[in-house]
Amino acid sequence: MTRRARGPVSRRALLTGGALSVGGAIGVAAASASRPEQRVPEVSAANFGGQMVPFYGAHQAGVETPAQAHAAFVALDLAAGVDRAALRRMMLVLTDDAARLTQGLAPLADGQPELAHVPARLTVTFGFGPRLFDAAGLGDRRPASLEQLPAFGIDRLQERWSGGDVLLQLCADDPLTVAHAQRMLVKDSRSFATVRWVQRGFRRGRGMQDDGVTQRNVLGQIDGTGNPAPGSPMFGGAVWTDTGPAWLHGGTTVVIRRIRAELEQWDAADAVGKEFAVGRRLSDGAPITGQRESDKPDFNAKNELGFSVISEFSHVARAQVGEDRLRIFRRPYNYDEPPGADGTADSGLVFASFQRDIGEQFIPIQRKLAEADLMNEWITPIGSAVFAVPPGCEPGGWIGEGLLK
Amino acid sequence: MTRRARGPVSRRALLTGGALSVGGAIGVAAASASRPEQRVPEVSAANFGGQMVPFYGAHQAGVETPAQAHAAFVALDLAAGVDRAALRRMMLVLTDDAARLTQGLAPLADGQPELAHVPARLTVTFGFGPRLFDAAGLGDRRPASLEQLPAFGIDRLQERWSGGDVLLQLCADDPLTVAHAQRMLVKDSRSFATVRWVQRGFRRGRGMQDDGVTQRNVLGQIDGTGNPAPGSPMFGGAVWTDTGPAWLHGGTTVVIRRIRAELEQWDAADAVGKEFAVGRRLSDGAPITGQRESDKPDFNAKNELGFSVISEFSHVARAQVGEDRLRIFRRPYNYDEPPGADGTADSGLVFASFQRDIGEQFIPIQRKLAEADLMNEWITPIGSAVFAVPPGCEPGGWIGEGLLK
Repeated sequence: MTRRARGPVSRRALLTGGALSVGGAIGVAAASASRPEQRVPEVSAANFGGQMVPFYGAHQAGVETPAQAHAAFVALDLAAGVDRAALRRMMLVLTDDAARLTQGLAPLADGQPELAHVPARLTVTFGFGPRLFDAAGLGDRRPASLEQLPAFGIDRLQERWSGGDVLLQLCADDPLTVAHAQRMLVKDSRSFATVRWVQRGFRRGRGMQDDGVTQRNVLGQIDGTGNPAPGSPMFGGAVWTDTGPAWLHGGTTVVIRRIRAELEQWDAADAVGKEFAVGRRLSDGAPITGQRESDKPDFNAKNELGFSVISEFSHVARAQVGEDRLRIFRRPYNYDEPPGADGTADSGLVFASFQRDIGEQFIPIQRKLAEADLMNEWITPIGSAVFAVPPGCEPGGWIGEGLLK
Repeated sequence: MTRRARGPVSRRALLTGGALSVGGAIGVAAASASRPEQRVPEVSAANFGGQMVPFYGAHQAGVETPAQAHAAFVALDLAAGVDRAALRRMMLVLTDDAARLTQGLAPLADGQPELAHVPARLTVTFGFGPRLFDAAGLGDRRPASLEQLPAFGIDRLQERWSGGDVLLQLCADDPLTVAHAQRMLVKDSRSFATVRWVQRGFRRGRGMQDDGVTQRNVLGQIDGTGNPAPGSPMFGGAVWTDTGPAWLHGGTTVVIRRIRAELEQWDAADAVGKEFAVGRRLSDGAPITGQRESDKPDFNAKNELGFSVISEFSHVARAQVGEDRLRIFRRPYNYDEPPGADGTADSGLVFASFQRDIGEQFIPIQRKLAEADLMNEWITPIGSAVFAVPPGCEPGGWIGEGLLK
């Protein structure tokens, strides 16, 4: 168990950034004898770099955690012959890496331990894709709706952005922290898996914008207004799984869709047309029937001709759900790859949606959107993947133990 | 001249972030009648998003400017038939875009004006590659050493990361700000040029680390200790061009090298070997003959066997220069592309070096390093490009006017 011994959290880190408690997870400050590579974290007066999100707890971090500025979504394919015992070994190692890295500590095999000392709210969230259950010989424990999504008419899916057996979702406010954590985890997964795809994403940087302001995406839209609020009972009821296979209770599921923004066409549309398609104002995200972003859209409001102000084909109308328990929690990141030689942007959203159950929540919404969302003219899903996100673990435990142990 | 009319800087932006004066550039706060898309910037209590670097001044911003967290280096190839008059039109448009975007204002043709309101210390720095002078019929005004670098034995250059007629260096503390600025500038360059390559890079995020701490690169090394200090006389003497063609006086040159880090091999080396190769300690960047990062390396120090403590083949020994005027100013960014399927990292440095004259300063250093730097085992140059960076301009002027008008 040498790998699992934990090094000290520096006193300075504990004093300045160690107590950030997020989303009900439980912080554990480990202490032991000094290790030579440990240094005082190089954190600034703003102290964003020294802030830590507890790793251990009832739920995995990185779901209810207020979204950090940078993300890497890494999908792994299991190597041939990786079975339940091998998966157990892999998750032991990766859990230990994650427990250390998120607390500003270098994994034992870290060739660049100096890069681990700026945790910057790093979270590592693990997910299990549909095929992992077969590899583990546990097909009967796969949640029923954890399978490739039905084909939607708007999809133009590319294999290189789709599928995967294991998800590593790495989020932090610092891009070097994400890069280093990704390298460590990918390195320690190499005996078990290959890299299928990596999707890097970003939001507004930490300290750039009021925390209360909802993010804008690359279309300029305010995106995420209707989310259940982290920490609210509505969040728990919609996100943490409480039905189906017992091992996933307290966990959740995630759908990751790569959604290309058709920026050329979007630029060509006028503001009125865009706002009609969205159902919200571009300037401040308020519904076109309201004044503030937080106002509820009035789907019954009519204009002087008797037509609905908010079109039934608008994004906000199509995406609405009647019941709180049927809501999804969106935690998306923007992507922006190098443009083509002709200057055409390759930008969009790494859309990540968390919900108790994909079949009950995500698919009905996506079906309605695919049928008739005016926004479909300007967005194209080009990647799709689904994962079960196991519950958290306590010190001494590991992620996925409820399924794999 | 409609394009050049400037919109208002919001009062709040002026009060909270408008006065950041960097590198001797002169801030100009423009005011005019209100434009409907202008909003109060969505800046946070930390106010990093609202901070602005003046655009106008004797030098272009983005050189002496303390390095922002994110960068995009965009190289453009001029379209066939683009001559001096067309270049003038292009630089007029791009200068206007840059002047606006850096001050938190949307360019007039901006389809997502909402994304322009978080300037986050955005700088846009323009460079002219060797071929631009031929296209403009101004071959005689090309600085003599602004040409493809001589081939170095360590180079494994790839065409896709090399060359280019025009450089756009976009730096800001917020990644969405960089993405939006890149899109606007690339879009407005499309009538004149195609995109040759884009290199995205990052450093520690704003507010993550003490500003006084030198950056670490993906190898974990503290990188940039020997730089002339921005704002010092040494900086001006080494960086701002004062010889050769008059139009470039007050400007500079930039060499951009894409340097792959051979992380697998680096991981396999032990700390003693790494520190011997660098000549500095990995933990804090102090020379192995000293105690603090700021200590001067003692190249005469001998060990008990009479050998030099700092090897003459170490990076720090090879890179030293005798004269302040011969120093180069490094302003590098890390890159981290998705790893290969086998988990091998694709990471390294977008090395950007500014100097008065490439032939006098950069080439002699690079030659010494290429001959015998112990670090060469772990780094491989895979891209190379050179650009002249024109001086700044005043309101009403445009970048490159000294050459092209």
